[in-house]
Amino acid sequence: MSAVDENGGTLRPIAWVGRLDGYVDMIDQTKLPGTLERIACRDVETIHDAIRRLAVRGAPAIGVAAAMGVVLGVRSFEGTDRRGFLDEVERVSEYLAATRPTAKNLFWALDRMCACAKAHGDSDVAAIKQVLLDEAMNIRDEDAAMCRAIGEAGQSLISDGCGVLTHCNAGALATAEYGTALAVMYSAHERGRDFKVYAGETRPLLQGSRLTAWELQRAGIDVTVICDNMAAHVMKLGLIDVVITGADRIAANGDTANKVGTYGLAVLAKAHDIPFYIAAPSTTFDLSIASGDGIPIEERAAEEIHGGFGVPTAPEGVGFYCPAFDVTPADLIRGLITERGIIDPVDRAAIAKALA
Amino acid sequence: MSAVDENGGTLRPIAWVGRLDGYVDMIDQTKLPGTLERIACRDVETIHDAIRRLAVRGAPAIGVAAAMGVVLGVRSFEGTDRRGFLDEVERVSEYLAATRPTAKNLFWALDRMCACAKAHGDSDVAAIKQVLLDEAMNIRDEDAAMCRAIGEAGQSLISDGCGVLTHCNAGALATAEYGTALAVMYSAHERGRDFKVYAGETRPLLQGSRLTAWELQRAGIDVTVICDNMAAHVMKLGLIDVVITGADRIAANGDTANKVGTYGLAVLAKAHDIPFYIAAPSTTFDLSIASGDGIPIEERAAEEIHGGFGVPTAPEGVGFYCPAFDVTPADLIRGLITERGIIDPVDRAAIAKALA
Repeated sequence: MSAVDENGGTLRPIAWVGRLDGYVDMIDQTKLPGTLERIACRDVETIHDAIRRLAVRGAPAIGVAAAMGVVLGVRSFEGTDRRGFLDEVERVSEYLAATRPTAKNLFWALDRMCACAKAHGDSDVAAIKQVLLDEAMNIRDEDAAMCRAIGEAGQSLISDGCGVLTHCNAGALATAEYGTALAVMYSAHERGRDFKVYAGETRPLLQGSRLTAWELQRAGIDVTVICDNMAAHVMKLGLIDVVITGADRIAANGDTANKVGTYGLAVLAKAHDIPFYIAAPSTTFDLSIASGDGIPIEERAAEEIHGGFGVPTAPEGVGFYCPAFDVTPADLIRGLITERGIIDPVDRAAIAKALA
Repeated sequence: MSAVDENGGTLRPIAWVGRLDGYVDMIDQTKLPGTLERIACRDVETIHDAIRRLAVRGAPAIGVAAAMGVVLGVRSFEGTDRRGFLDEVERVSEYLAATRPTAKNLFWALDRMCACAKAHGDSDVAAIKQVLLDEAMNIRDEDAAMCRAIGEAGQSLISDGCGVLTHCNAGALATAEYGTALAVMYSAHERGRDFKVYAGETRPLLQGSRLTAWELQRAGIDVTVICDNMAAHVMKLGLIDVVITGADRIAANGDTANKVGTYGLAVLAKAHDIPFYIAAPSTTFDLSIASGDGIPIEERAAEEIHGGFGVPTAPEGVGFYCPAFDVTPADLIRGLITERGIIDPVDRAAIAKALA
């Protein structure tokens, strides 16, 4: 069993409800684990805000949210001017693209929505609106299917008695459903395997303790939360057999941007002879970028470090540095778990072949 | 200039005020950085509680607090029975020894107080009480002098333009005054050197952002707070030239127990060719323990991870693992900065020679 929602159904952080005049139903992840609260997004501004403030986060889920956001943004376009409508699709896409800089899936989904609109540029505006909703639903459904396939591809990495370390949240909440790194765990769990997951809490916003622990617990998987700085000690104790995290963008050579802290875990895993895997759908790869040096790294507000809990945790006036991501070089990654199988070794040629 | 107190004087976390009928004046470090609040400890139970709940923390400061705690615990002893009084010194010492298991200085200071009482076993009870207060004051004064000498011994490691990474708080607040790892920075700062300190926030109790950033800021040193999981990224960016932390216990072979996260930083430093130093007085060495395997590691309450900010940061019912310390093997440590100079290389022979 994988993570479940409040009704015992499949946990889906984001869904379109109704027809073209419907809305996006989204779990507000900033409220977890305290309350499972949903937001009804009826305009693109609400989606834009949700992505920026991390009510929806995780590269694949951001892609789905953005695609649905395009529909919300253009459906109120009045008139029958096709050219004007296509310009509006571009404008809304650019607006959504400016929310966050690192996750590849965001740009991938927006590009796909723009291309879809153009491909139907000869249709009526009303028809293109419907086609865009269909495309957003396709992106959601395809992401869910890719996540299932990632789980299948990676499940054999987790055997009975295994200790698995993960970082941040690469679960159902980060995708259309099921997850990427956590999909591997859900697949192994569905096969009846007994293993233990260590979830790094993931400062500053604690996606590991707030979201990953919450999801895994709801799926009946044994989960232990540690502070990020305890990972090396836990590895040294021999409690970790494999490390699996998600990704926000993977360059052509396999260098991978993911939540800050991932790179450090990869270095520590190597020092302890523990295999380190990244799980991500093909939509997270950016073959236009040769190496990790080309991946833009988002810097977040200092407030996330010193004010995240309502009580200041540092004196006023000191400096802060708050990168949201870091880049793990390909040579520290044993394999990339994708919906097309595990890419191992991780290099330019193997990636090009797998994604061809 | 080093860190200053509320009156612009030398920052001293713990001091004895008055004569034998006086009290221990202690900064309640759990209230920092919000307020600089002092506690007047007039009985040993208050000292015991202060050590347990980390109102006073840092191996050398715990040693000083415990020594003064012995005085508070035995001064109300009534009568003139010397044997009974010596038993009382032992009983109070055992009571204080049970507060925390890892810091060597705690046991060292208590042993010294017991030995002092025994050495004066022929004196009047009233005289031994006074001798014990003098001994506690000696321990405090010697610690302050050792910290100054540590700073002198290590200051040349920090040159102009350096980036220095530290973890937890090994500053004035962790000692009688001036600090150990931070003493090195204060000494370099006093010589007019311009450098930048990165302070890992140090989950779960944030001694880095709450205490180290506070101290360094008050000393006029440029300090930037990062989350612990950002250290690897900051190293990769080339911002760190040297890592310096404190220690809670150093085994005969140089293996060092310190705040959890230190070991991971040492592994990361090695991977980035950055020298990693430990700063500690000779009272932190435990030559009775052959290697780090023999150092007991305190496990703290899960509450420190999930409830530290008044808002639950993980779902109820999941597991937690909360070691307070980890052990860095000697081969990852470039040098041990002590009041007797820098021990380099770090091995059994060099340590035995330096401490002889």
